[in-house]
Amino acid sequence: MRIRAATADDWPAIWPFFHRIVAAGETYTYPRDLGEEEGREWWLLEPPGHTVVAVDDEETVLGSAKMNPNHLGPASHIAGAGFMVAPGHSGQGVGRALGEYALEWARREGYRAMQFNAVVETNTRAVALWRSLGFEIIGTLPEGFRHPEKGYVGLHIMYRRL
Amino acid sequence: MRIRAATADDWPAIWPFFHRIVAAGETYTYPRDLGEEEGREWWLLEPPGHTVVAVDDEETVLGSAKMNPNHLGPASHIAGAGFMVAPGHSGQGVGRALGEYALEWARREGYRAMQFNAVVETNTRAVALWRSLGFEIIGTLPEGFRHPEKGYVGLHIMYRRL
Repeated sequence: MRIRAATADDWPAIWPFFHRIVAAGETYTYPRDLGEEEGREWWLLEPPGHTVVAVDDEETVLGSAKMNPNHLGPASHIAGAGFMVAPGHSGQGVGRALGEYALEWARREGYRAMQFNAVVETNTRAVALWRSLGFEIIGTLPEGFRHPEKGYVGLHIMYRRL
Repeated sequence: MRIRAATADDWPAIWPFFHRIVAAGETYTYPRDLGEEEGREWWLLEPPGHTVVAVDDEETVLGSAKMNPNHLGPASHIAGAGFMVAPGHSGQGVGRALGEYALEWARREGYRAMQFNAVVETNTRAVALWRSLGFEIIGTLPEGFRHPEKGYVGLHIMYRRL
């Protein structure tokens, strides 16, 4: 697996799993009916943001991550990030590799911390992954997320210094 | 004091204190050099956002507040808000009146909770005001805000159900 900067040419490979994940409404605070054009604008970031794809030896896109300032002005030293792994490639360490990459990128860019604004508490794999990468739950919005099957569940804010 | 919807005509009265507050860099996570045009776009919101001014009997603008969805999609039931009181009119209950208005507005619009993403811990008046209006600190980003005099200080996330 290799992680490289994403280009506009990668979008057709990202959109199918991006769309599936967003439409499922279980993990992302994006509108479930988000269209392809808007999705592309939200995901493929210009500097100071950065978007990457994880690819295998055949250049198949296994997942993607975006990194960006989470706040502006006097809090612009806090980075944020989002991650999506193609469902057919979950459990292969793609999320972990993207997470490690994002932390490295943020350190290199001079950020002092990374904050995830909205990690759904029922997304236990993600919560466990971020914990294993040094993130802590610093707060939970009670009933912050409306899960399509489980109803209102907590929304964690996770954070780690760099 | 009366609170009414803000219009583009109010901006010339808002900008001087908006600019002063943002440029001071002590309470807002906006770029300290934010320009007037961008400031107007960030503050005077279109629906589903809402911006108001608090005015006295002579229609002098004492302060302003903006309200908006804090998250999208499955978390769009959480509102956010921002408040600015003209420094010459602080201590007169303007912030409290705007806060109460924002809570009422959010209830009326069907939100289930309100979240403030970034309340600087040294802004003790604001922290005390929001506590008195039922908000809790649900988490603090350690060293999340670079205060121009106090250095890195905590950034609270505050929350209340509606």
